[in-house]
Amino acid sequence: MSIVERVAWIAVDWGASKLQIWAMDGAHDLLAERSLTQDMGGLECMQFESVLLQIIDEFLVAGRVMPVICCGMVGAKHGWVEADYITAPSRPPSGACAMRVISNDARIDVRIVPGMKQVAQPDVMWGEETQVAGFLSEQPKFDGVLVMLGTHSKWVHISAGEIVSFQTFITGEIYALLAHQSVLKHSIAVTGWDDIAFEVALAETISRPESAAAKLFSLRAASLVGDQSAEVARARLSGLLIGLELAATRPYWLGQNLAVVAATNAGEIYAKALSLQGLQAQVYDARLMMRRGLIAAYNTMKNTT
Amino acid sequence: MSIVERVAWIAVDWGASKLQIWAMDGAHDLLAERSLTQDMGGLECMQFESVLLQIIDEFLVAGRVMPVICCGMVGAKHGWVEADYITAPSRPPSGACAMRVISNDARIDVRIVPGMKQVAQPDVMWGEETQVAGFLSEQPKFDGVLVMLGTHSKWVHISAGEIVSFQTFITGEIYALLAHQSVLKHSIAVTGWDDIAFEVALAETISRPESAAAKLFSLRAASLVGDQSAEVARARLSGLLIGLELAATRPYWLGQNLAVVAATNAGEIYAKALSLQGLQAQVYDARLMMRRGLIAAYNTMKNTT
Repeated sequence: MSIVERVAWIAVDWGASKLQIWAMDGAHDLLAERSLTQDMGGLECMQFESVLLQIIDEFLVAGRVMPVICCGMVGAKHGWVEADYITAPSRPPSGACAMRVISNDARIDVRIVPGMKQVAQPDVMWGEETQVAGFLSEQPKFDGVLVMLGTHSKWVHISAGEIVSFQTFITGEIYALLAHQSVLKHSIAVTGWDDIAFEVALAETISRPESAAAKLFSLRAASLVGDQSAEVARARLSGLLIGLELAATRPYWLGQNLAVVAATNAGEIYAKALSLQGLQAQVYDARLMMRRGLIAAYNTMKNTT
Repeated sequence: MSIVERVAWIAVDWGASKLQIWAMDGAHDLLAERSLTQDMGGLECMQFESVLLQIIDEFLVAGRVMPVICCGMVGAKHGWVEADYITAPSRPPSGACAMRVISNDARIDVRIVPGMKQVAQPDVMWGEETQVAGFLSEQPKFDGVLVMLGTHSKWVHISAGEIVSFQTFITGEIYALLAHQSVLKHSIAVTGWDDIAFEVALAETISRPESAAAKLFSLRAASLVGDQSAEVARARLSGLLIGLELAATRPYWLGQNLAVVAATNAGEIYAKALSLQGLQAQVYDARLMMRRGLIAAYNTMKNTT
């Protein structure tokens, strides 16, 4: 049987800058995956369907309706349709509260899982709630904190199957702006690493968070008037910024049960940083958690077609 | 007598992105000023002279040699010529240590004032040392700290006419990156202000510096799930970042004699922030200090022509 004949539904992670799809069979095994880098900011509401069709058309057959379950920024205010938010504390949204999108193409039945919001300490997430659902489908009894990495990291407190609270840090975005667009860029390597430099900088800002601000320019100056290498500067910048995040998230990690969810090697770097504070955190694959979350959403989807 | 006949020398502040010149008479009164926005990063060594001539040619006369005293990044490694550094602690460089640049045009005699460097806590300055010289020409007995604002701020400890130590903060650059290029840009106004929001955010990060990292994303979230205005977000971002800088510079301002040197209204904002810590700091005009520093350099220049 060809892949097209076996595809039972399509899982979609549609973020601000990337569209990732997984073609799944009836047993929720992965048949194929595709991705597209596309800035959502440039899309009119009407264009979302054709962008999606570009990437899933090969799996569609006339006369059949393919379920397509999406999560991510695609359901935010400037996305395809606004799928609204579930308010924390709450279980992560299931497929039952996914929003159905009216499409022009009769071959697809598109649902978008809503994001989550928090009002008291204002915060929002789009996509991570589905990863949490995936993580909980594996570890339903987990009680503790998920550290979900990305351009923006989310610290998510989970208890009794609920997202109790969460907080977003834009550490990854600040790193990228400083390393690639600020005066520091001349002194910071694109690759390369120095463990000791990372650990020293991390310890500095965990114990004295304000030193992050004080030490940024020295990353440049130490290469001009000293002999600091660009690899050391890179590891130091990481250490300063992650240290500042850990100083701010102390209530999340002190004495807590932790797990890290990451799609890149940032997972190992954070796990190392946490281990230096005496905490052991297992690292989980963010894409796998996402897919499991979309499977959970598909399994709980109301059939309104 | 025409301006051209009265011009005795030309003072030049040549930074990374802007060239500013002042045509001065023999009594050091200002006759005319011109400026040019030009990214120094794109200039070959050979091109500096023609860029300078573009802007000062109108003041030159065949058969006369015009002294031109420059300071700023133009004397740094990737500038016109490397004028090297004076190492702190030291008096700010005088005209006697300015580097002479060999020019093709016989109508100019160009000197570049060196920058300053600090080795133990690596740091560098290019241009501010000349402002310090200008400030000291007015207040030779000043003992305390100059807060010199700009895209990068410098906290300069001055005693007995010497620059004892200094430290650079890239707060202004981080503000610009976050306000204009990060995810926060959607929620931050270009103008507008809210005093209370500034003061609250400032107090938060002075007392808990790590909260700067924790509260950045809430500038976005509070506009998505709350009703925070873009003007409030702008003042809060300023407060968070200046608070972090003040937390880091506490040893510079606690119980110190302070003066602020600024070219923009950031001077008033920092003075306000300092006054909330119980410190009164007078604000001085950075361009005026720069011109006085260049006058001091001109007056102490060795005549090697």
